[in-house]
Amino acid sequence: MTKKIYLDDIPLSEAWARFSAAMQAADKWQPIEGEDVSLDQALGRVTAQPIFAKISAPHYHASAMDGYAVRAEDTAQASDNNPVTLTQIKYVDTGDPLPGWANAIPIENVQVHENRVDALRGDSISDLQSPISIEIRSALTPWSHVRAMGEDMVATELVLPSNHILRPVDLGAIAGCGHNRVRVRRQPRVAVIPTGTELVPAGSSVNAGDIIEYNSLVLAAQVQTWGGVATRYNIVPDNLEQIVATVREAAATHDLILLNAGSSSGSEDFSAKVVETLGELLVHGIAVRPGHPVILGVISNLQSPIPIIGVPGYPVSAALTGEIFVEPILSKWLGRSANQQPTLQATISRKVLSPMGDDEYMRVTVGKVGSRVVATPLSRGAGVITSLVRADGIVRIPRLSEGVQAGDGVTVHLYRAPAEIDRTIVAIGSHDLCLDLLSQFIAEKSAMRLASANVGSLGGLIALGRGEAHVAGTHLLDPDTGEYNVSYIKRYLPDTPIVLMTFVYRDQGLIVPKGNPKKIRTLADLERASFVNRQRGAGTRVLLDFEIGKIGLSPESIRGYEREEYTHLAVAAAVASGVADCGLGIHSAASALDLDFVPLFKERYDLAIPKEFFESELMRPLLETINDSKFKDAVKNLAGYDIRGMGNIAAQLL
Amino acid sequence: MTKKIYLDDIPLSEAWARFSAAMQAADKWQPIEGEDVSLDQALGRVTAQPIFAKISAPHYHASAMDGYAVRAEDTAQASDNNPVTLTQIKYVDTGDPLPGWANAIPIENVQVHENRVDALRGDSISDLQSPISIEIRSALTPWSHVRAMGEDMVATELVLPSNHILRPVDLGAIAGCGHNRVRVRRQPRVAVIPTGTELVPAGSSVNAGDIIEYNSLVLAAQVQTWGGVATRYNIVPDNLEQIVATVREAAATHDLILLNAGSSSGSEDFSAKVVETLGELLVHGIAVRPGHPVILGVISNLQSPIPIIGVPGYPVSAALTGEIFVEPILSKWLGRSANQQPTLQATISRKVLSPMGDDEYMRVTVGKVGSRVVATPLSRGAGVITSLVRADGIVRIPRLSEGVQAGDGVTVHLYRAPAEIDRTIVAIGSHDLCLDLLSQFIAEKSAMRLASANVGSLGGLIALGRGEAHVAGTHLLDPDTGEYNVSYIKRYLPDTPIVLMTFVYRDQGLIVPKGNPKKIRTLADLERASFVNRQRGAGTRVLLDFEIGKIGLSPESIRGYEREEYTHLAVAAAVASGVADCGLGIHSAASALDLDFVPLFKERYDLAIPKEFFESELMRPLLETINDSKFKDAVKNLAGYDIRGMGNIAAQLL
Repeated sequence: MTKKIYLDDIPLSEAWARFSAAMQAADKWQPIEGEDVSLDQALGRVTAQPIFAKISAPHYHASAMDGYAVRAEDTAQASDNNPVTLTQIKYVDTGDPLPGWANAIPIENVQVHENRVDALRGDSISDLQSPISIEIRSALTPWSHVRAMGEDMVATELVLPSNHILRPVDLGAIAGCGHNRVRVRRQPRVAVIPTGTELVPAGSSVNAGDIIEYNSLVLAAQVQTWGGVATRYNIVPDNLEQIVATVREAAATHDLILLNAGSSSGSEDFSAKVVETLGELLVHGIAVRPGHPVILGVISNLQSPIPIIGVPGYPVSAALTGEIFVEPILSKWLGRSANQQPTLQATISRKVLSPMGDDEYMRVTVGKVGSRVVATPLSRGAGVITSLVRADGIVRIPRLSEGVQAGDGVTVHLYRAPAEIDRTIVAIGSHDLCLDLLSQFIAEKSAMRLASANVGSLGGLIALGRGEAHVAGTHLLDPDTGEYNVSYIKRYLPDTPIVLMTFVYRDQGLIVPKGNPKKIRTLADLERASFVNRQRGAGTRVLLDFEIGKIGLSPESIRGYEREEYTHLAVAAAVASGVADCGLGIHSAASALDLDFVPLFKERYDLAIPKEFFESELMRPLLETINDSKFKDAVKNLAGYDIRGMGNIAAQLL
Repeated sequence: MTKKIYLDDIPLSEAWARFSAAMQAADKWQPIEGEDVSLDQALGRVTAQPIFAKISAPHYHASAMDGYAVRAEDTAQASDNNPVTLTQIKYVDTGDPLPGWANAIPIENVQVHENRVDALRGDSISDLQSPISIEIRSALTPWSHVRAMGEDMVATELVLPSNHILRPVDLGAIAGCGHNRVRVRRQPRVAVIPTGTELVPAGSSVNAGDIIEYNSLVLAAQVQTWGGVATRYNIVPDNLEQIVATVREAAATHDLILLNAGSSSGSEDFSAKVVETLGELLVHGIAVRPGHPVILGVISNLQSPIPIIGVPGYPVSAALTGEIFVEPILSKWLGRSANQQPTLQATISRKVLSPMGDDEYMRVTVGKVGSRVVATPLSRGAGVITSLVRADGIVRIPRLSEGVQAGDGVTVHLYRAPAEIDRTIVAIGSHDLCLDLLSQFIAEKSAMRLASANVGSLGGLIALGRGEAHVAGTHLLDPDTGEYNVSYIKRYLPDTPIVLMTFVYRDQGLIVPKGNPKKIRTLADLERASFVNRQRGAGTRVLLDFEIGKIGLSPESIRGYEREEYTHLAVAAAVASGVADCGLGIHSAASALDLDFVPLFKERYDLAIPKEFFESELMRPLLETINDSKFKDAVKNLAGYDIRGMGNIAAQLL
């Protein structure tokens, strides 16, 4: 059988210590050398040395206005009662140099005596601009309306320090003090090498077992974002010799190698062997979560040692390995301070256990709900790239901590500007495709953002009660009254004034494979077909329990009753994959995966919105979109939806 | 004479209203069309349509571990006392598809019974991975250690909305759900056309009157930063026909034209005529400061009208015109919300008067001094590009306001992350080149930043008293005691505990032209030479007054005594330009401009640091740098400096 080798993970700080010691020994733990680039290529680059003014700006005494240059001292006696006539004058346009004798330009209380004789002799306009005299009626301060030499920059002055990231105005200042090139740090060259026989390039048609290779895309884009230049290599199959050859070749022309996947300890995990073959394995396994099977090493059979990172294969692990290791290395080389994400204090909404030995990087969404900033944990699966896409930030749970309790204060390292968090409408509750559509319409029409988390109808109401959301999508049938949502809101939100707004009516029914091979027509047929259920608290689950109760079907008699999925689409996916013969869900989910649908019930899907938020500026784009005819048309085009009553207030509670 | 046409400035809001109405009429006040790009070209681009999952991720039920796939139901009875032996099993590596019948992978309490006979028959390793049976001692939950199809994304799900700026992880998610291209907004094409006969390209050797053209560099870099593509045209001389021809040509292939300079109303300001010739002049003159001679217009003799902006010539006006007009237009076209700079509440340190009729954009530095955030206004000169380089942000003084009073609360629109403000040591006081050097060393060695404003020694002590700075450079001689700084600190900061640290000893003397043509040897020679002075409150000014008093020379007898400059280098520049025969200053300023120096006195230049800050974490990099031998060596290499006593505590006051 396969020998299982469990990695002996070391703490993150220890891993950094080993790596930086090796880099220091190789004289590589410092900013990289500089290169001269022309200013029009320098945007975003990092200065490799301080920039001193080569010439002053302005480099001469310049007129700040169109007018007559004079000598201020000549005007000392001038006043309304004592106009002074000056003949030592010269017309200058803005930017023209002042004559050596001049030091001011009057712009008020000036009268020009034109030399009509010259004009009549047919001289040109420019001669008219040099009349014989001007009369002036107030004394001038020296250097009035003059930009003195060096007003902006004086030659030899420090204009910009080294280690500065060049912005547009910086380029102007550098040009303005006499340079046309600037010495910036060379961009570190990073090789990104994807390995794995099971990998296929993005856009390939896929068979079961094929894994779409996109870690190299993410890592290369990260490198670019952080000021490096990435080379993406073609996929290398799981073959030690081929990988060694590729890494050896890459090391000759790059500053850093990212070898993706194969960093674990399985039978096809060659990365450690590759590093050992070509140099020194410094670290194999780091106590970070996700991402622990990270390799740090040095390729040493070269002129100068080249660092190599074995990046884990799961996409979240790979991307976080980029953030945790690659970004600080590139920042060090660029002489830039490491990425300082803005942080925000928030209250965590759920309890999260974390292994004592690991530094955990927990992805969260963040919303400002009333006066509270709430962080809600996202999926912790290392394979769920959308948990990073949807994340507003990261909460770090340090080693030697067992996790966080609901209500704990946490520091969120934000992926977004804090202002974006303020513009986010947080929806927690039941999932519906129309909610995706609503989110899309809001993003198109406003600066606001609708972020939704799917936890089922009841979960949404509970989240509203906890002050974690602005709006909850809910379709909870009260079996006693046949009414939707109202009794649940009264029970779960007894103290919160809530506006209950009708969003859509939608068909609920059985999602079955194309052609409905088992001829499923009613819930009674569940006795002879396997089923996939929704999670406890979901409106669809309540509906199922209500309806099977009516026909006297027991949960125990339904095969698969205990298999729970969290969204309509996940139910449809289970049917599509053959895991179950059917599941209860909505029409749109069935159409989406090209499945058949047996409509059974019509249910109302409402939005529950605390009155406080209903009336807020934040909610306005949502309410406007719901009443927008283009949005209604888009919903009508989805199968299984009915827009009657959309936007109506179904109830105002409290 | 030249006819002066004063522009009839209209308010900013009115200007925008006219411009957006014209754009709306031309059907151009909306996001631009999309284009398909491959994912590896899509970083930073803006989605032009929502992205829905084409396939699920994973697109099959995948093993999440290396192990044996089993059917969970088969293990229902398993326990420590009742091991269950399974034969329907299959070895899978992480990522492998599960067989149709399997739905779980046990990783604990599993014993594998190897098929020794097969092994002896010499079968390969992979056969050993398919043993006959495994024994299991605990029941499994279905889907344990399995990544179910659609765990990450379900086909048809909304993955990203339109108008979203693509980040590295987004590219991964798009690839992961089956795409290899993405529809993004086309990058708007912006033509940047510099005009002006007096302009010379960056890096040219310059004569008086030549203006280095760098506005096009700044504007093009701004366009790039904001997601557009800029074309920089060559400099066009002030010739109406040539400018018209260039604009006409540019309009055929661009979405927006930026015509730089010539937007005022002088004799060589052609921009308005250019716009009138080719289309419609919408706005000429906007009540914003700096930057009011802005032109907004439309080039209309084309297939579709193209907007044109006449950008003012002064560099600060030009850059702010970019921020105020170009950025929002590009954001509108890209379907992105306009740039939202982070803001910070601060206290303004000085009174600033602002014209009632104008929206003023005031550049400020911002420092967190103790618990106060203080904004200090920078130069308001429209020609001072370094005021934008040094600015930490902008304070907007709205129309109909007369300005701000010292101590007023203001909102700063930041150019830096708020965290950078927290890492800034604010130095206000006397200027010294070693302070530039110190700033440079601190930037190289730490994440901290030393921002210095030069207001003279006394101004620095007053700033400390007002709580506007962390440190003040001061060299104030007490004429009564011959002692430096102590008596001034006692007088101006009677209630603040101050640590006075020696920074450098430096030569003070007369800066004279190369060769010292007037043979100036002592201050007595000022009777026969013109002088350039430092401002009241500057230590050098105090020294001058002290020393001329000693020899009985009156200020009135010194020609140029009233001409004040604010830095040593500005004094040197005045001498270099021939404005004055000499000025009192330090050696390094003379060497910097290749002037001669007549040393007269040695003075001590100290750093005054409130005790509270002296002991703070913030100040540590400064104190460490002062005691760093590399820094000391660098100072020693500057002419006229003496490092004895550097870093010594000269006095602790209070």
